[in-house]
Amino acid sequence: MKHPPLVETLIEAFTCLPGVGPRSAQRMAYTLLERGRDDGRALSAALSQAMDGVRQCKRCRNYAEEELCPICQDPRRDPGLVCIVASPADVLAVEQSGEYRGQYFVLMGQLSPLDGIGPRELGLDVLEARLNEGEIQELILATGTTVEGEATAHYVLDLAREAGVNVSRIAQGVPMGGDLEFVDGATLAHALRGRRPFST
Amino acid sequence: MKHPPLVETLIEAFTCLPGVGPRSAQRMAYTLLERGRDDGRALSAALSQAMDGVRQCKRCRNYAEEELCPICQDPRRDPGLVCIVASPADVLAVEQSGEYRGQYFVLMGQLSPLDGIGPRELGLDVLEARLNEGEIQELILATGTTVEGEATAHYVLDLAREAGVNVSRIAQGVPMGGDLEFVDGATLAHALRGRRPFST
Repeated sequence: MKHPPLVETLIEAFTCLPGVGPRSAQRMAYTLLERGRDDGRALSAALSQAMDGVRQCKRCRNYAEEELCPICQDPRRDPGLVCIVASPADVLAVEQSGEYRGQYFVLMGQLSPLDGIGPRELGLDVLEARLNEGEIQELILATGTTVEGEATAHYVLDLAREAGVNVSRIAQGVPMGGDLEFVDGATLAHALRGRRPFST
Repeated sequence: MKHPPLVETLIEAFTCLPGVGPRSAQRMAYTLLERGRDDGRALSAALSQAMDGVRQCKRCRNYAEEELCPICQDPRRDPGLVCIVASPADVLAVEQSGEYRGQYFVLMGQLSPLDGIGPRELGLDVLEARLNEGEIQELILATGTTVEGEATAHYVLDLAREAGVNVSRIAQGVPMGGDLEFVDGATLAHALRGRRPFST
């Protein structure tokens, strides 16, 4: 390799990004050096500001710049309804549905004892305290349907039952707009068990 | 969107990278925020140092941190042999072949008058001056085989002839280790025209 050290360091640094291998990293470095030095400086500034300035909302654990995130600060959101999700990306997915007016609780992961991720790492002690405060009327479970997601859901279910709070789970079934032949068996079994009276 | 502004700015900044759309940009930002803040700070530092510290070698126009790039500084490289390439990535490709002990001249582009890229933008005035100095014995053309690459090659050929310098071009033909059926017609035509006596 005959890169100047600064270029080598930059290429190496790019490979910390998900989905970026040595070749894409080199392409990124070259593109910025050739015709995007201002973009590169802007990215550098955005990175250092975000790495130092973004923290977690005290109430829901989502990303925030102040004590509370924009959703927890919004007085129009119903504090009696709390949706449990695994990650900030899941919050965005639910928000984009346009259906939800409650608040969130972001676990930032799922229970995985082998990886050292227990209830405390997911802030479930914080959730337990909030459940016991009495403001929450209903908890909506929207964790994934993997083994870890199921384990997490059951743990939260137990917490909510102890606090006497209603728990629901988002419906599992056939996705909208898809052909039945492409739906896997487990999903179809769930969809059959969860069938509901047909009304128009 | 309910991202905090710093996160939004970071996601937006990531989309300046080649091959990065809004979804990958979001994934990059989340990954760094969740479990790579130190990586993020390192990338920020590498970016700002490279954007401000990397300039072009005075002699060959490749990236450099000093007046001359590492290759032009290397006394073991033959200054009589100069390979013309379009980009720094092409220099690496030739270096990886392990075959070349001469120097380079990096055009940082190809002739494209409609995009405002003329001989001066490619540093061809600098090359002309070097050709007239008399140190260069042979020029090896290794520009691409696109229309712009061909136009560039012919322009350089004229410069070299005027200066009385020999010009060669890297061989065009069938790639190593490939089946003939997957080679396109134009390449095969080139390979046939460029056939050479077979020796073992």
